[in-house]
Amino acid sequence: MVNSFGTRVSPLSVPERLLLGPGPSNSHPLVLKALSNQPVGHLDPYYIDLMAEVQGLLRHVWQTDNRLTLPMSGTGSAAMEATIANIVEPGDTVLVAIKGYFGNRLADMASRYQANVKKIERSWGQVFSIEELKEALEKYRPTVLALVHAETSTGVCQPMEAIGDLCRKYDCLLILDTVTSLGSVPVHLDNWKVDLAYSCSQKGLSCPPGLGPFTMNKRAEEKLNKRKGKVPNWYLDVSLLNQYWGSDRVYHHTAPVNMNFGIRESLRLIIEEGLENSWKRHSENANYLWDGLENIGLQLHVDKNYRLPTLSTVKIPEGVDGKAFSMHLLNNYGVEIGGGLGELAGKVWRIGLMGYNSQKNNVDRILNLFDTELSKFKS
Amino acid sequence: MVNSFGTRVSPLSVPERLLLGPGPSNSHPLVLKALSNQPVGHLDPYYIDLMAEVQGLLRHVWQTDNRLTLPMSGTGSAAMEATIANIVEPGDTVLVAIKGYFGNRLADMASRYQANVKKIERSWGQVFSIEELKEALEKYRPTVLALVHAETSTGVCQPMEAIGDLCRKYDCLLILDTVTSLGSVPVHLDNWKVDLAYSCSQKGLSCPPGLGPFTMNKRAEEKLNKRKGKVPNWYLDVSLLNQYWGSDRVYHHTAPVNMNFGIRESLRLIIEEGLENSWKRHSENANYLWDGLENIGLQLHVDKNYRLPTLSTVKIPEGVDGKAFSMHLLNNYGVEIGGGLGELAGKVWRIGLMGYNSQKNNVDRILNLFDTELSKFKS
Repeated sequence: MVNSFGTRVSPLSVPERLLLGPGPSNSHPLVLKALSNQPVGHLDPYYIDLMAEVQGLLRHVWQTDNRLTLPMSGTGSAAMEATIANIVEPGDTVLVAIKGYFGNRLADMASRYQANVKKIERSWGQVFSIEELKEALEKYRPTVLALVHAETSTGVCQPMEAIGDLCRKYDCLLILDTVTSLGSVPVHLDNWKVDLAYSCSQKGLSCPPGLGPFTMNKRAEEKLNKRKGKVPNWYLDVSLLNQYWGSDRVYHHTAPVNMNFGIRESLRLIIEEGLENSWKRHSENANYLWDGLENIGLQLHVDKNYRLPTLSTVKIPEGVDGKAFSMHLLNNYGVEIGGGLGELAGKVWRIGLMGYNSQKNNVDRILNLFDTELSKFKS
Repeated sequence: MVNSFGTRVSPLSVPERLLLGPGPSNSHPLVLKALSNQPVGHLDPYYIDLMAEVQGLLRHVWQTDNRLTLPMSGTGSAAMEATIANIVEPGDTVLVAIKGYFGNRLADMASRYQANVKKIERSWGQVFSIEELKEALEKYRPTVLALVHAETSTGVCQPMEAIGDLCRKYDCLLILDTVTSLGSVPVHLDNWKVDLAYSCSQKGLSCPPGLGPFTMNKRAEEKLNKRKGKVPNWYLDVSLLNQYWGSDRVYHHTAPVNMNFGIRESLRLIIEEGLENSWKRHSENANYLWDGLENIGLQLHVDKNYRLPTLSTVKIPEGVDGKAFSMHLLNNYGVEIGGGLGELAGKVWRIGLMGYNSQKNNVDRILNLFDTELSKFKS
């Protein structure tokens, strides 16, 4: 069939993929089933109850009591922007601790909201020490510190001990990116004294991309309430969203109802497994992957102490065309792995074991492919 | 099951609803099937091809050649904000022609982007004449005129003849809201000389909510390219999105892959039916509804010449509690209709016949319910 603008349209036929890259990951089959329900109205009493359930479930996986916890109606990047848009006022000093691609993005976003952006940087694959953060807080006295817990671009997990206390000492709000940790790596927002956090639906939560979990605590709410002007972003304005997701249920925008069916199911499945069991499963399968990769002579990019169970960066051996190898896996085996970004472009592959895909048989599959196929790409 | 934060989580069990309100409407079953495919990666060659198909299909339903045509990764409100965020610079005069709820929203958004907002208003249920628009353009000399084609809050369809020419004469960009017209009511963006437009997925396109089709032409692109600073909204920045949806395919954010499977299927189904056949079906079923409502003694709020086939506003008879009646239909028959907003709160019901739900048997169902149930609510 060809339409009047010359576009050919054949019936949809999606190829089967095993998604072992940086995300999206495969979804749990029950989440896909939930997605395919007929929608209900966004002001339907059934949906209003479901909203409250999703909020409660998100609080659980984040280990927070924050009242303002909700899925933004966009992807993780929208939720990231929501943290900045709501609490940054023009002229605020925002310190961004950059150790990968997503730190840079936070800095770009903050500058668009007219922050006075200060950066501290570590090379891609490293973490920040508490001393480095303290020195920077002392030097810049920022209103906000933005930090990535789990850097999808490097496979690093930032230790969080003492950072929250430090931020409170310096009267600074702490934004934490938990995009590649929520549901799959221990996250204790309240214990860590994190003020705002965001995540995505398509990694540890085993749901397709399209929702961006967002949360902010009372300290962050106070900053929002004291703003001089309106939040300069209507769609992500939490003071408006609060009227819809809070007790008033005032219409803001038409919620992505089916995506919310999906995330509710994905969160329910985490509770069913047990949050700590999910963390443990991710840790075990990651260790199994790391050992297996080393056994076939490959090296991991990140020091074992700081490795992220959900995303592993593997050094591309000398002489191997990393891109050609990953395209070979995709085209001939339907298995997706990722390449490096930024400083790590051409240097690493990124292997994800996230949510539903963190399974021993998937590790066996990818190890077997590295074992049998990689030699074909060595010069 | 109760989680550590006290939330009860039973298995998902979505009630069956016939959605005859202002949207979302029910989705086509094949769209729901498309949604439930396992995701693929957002940089997978298969997905890159699918993106191009979705863009081509959107151009067709909008009847435009605009290169920059794409679904925003959010709901219709996000796409609305994208039109404003990208082309409004601080101090620009933006004229908003307000004749309902969504005109007010456009004005709110424009003010957040530091526009000098000017408004002209008509009461809810009226349209603007070309003379009124001309007078306002003459008086305010705006950079942008924002107008709603199909007002979901009133059931009015704004005649579009000569407005585009007028805007060009006054060197003004024209933004058009086609949220409740795309796919179901004739829209001829290029012939109408519309510069930017947006829509949603959950009405005429028979897809769940979650994507916001967006388009801008060369005139609008020129304004974007000449901006002094960055677009003050990272997520909706078309200059960044253009690198992903254009030929470069540079990663911007992780696309809501499954929602894009869904919209591709919904657009394919429109092509299969024929766009003009879809318009005709909506018109016929709306006329059948209007005649039927009048036959049982009810009155429509909007003059027949300006009625929107997708959304009809029906006057609530004196003495009837409109909200109680619509809750009765929802709770006892699983049928959703909407209430009035703003000026029309408590005065009208809103009945939607959109996309997949524009079917003669649905009209019979709602007419029958009005016929048999309404008398129980008359005092």
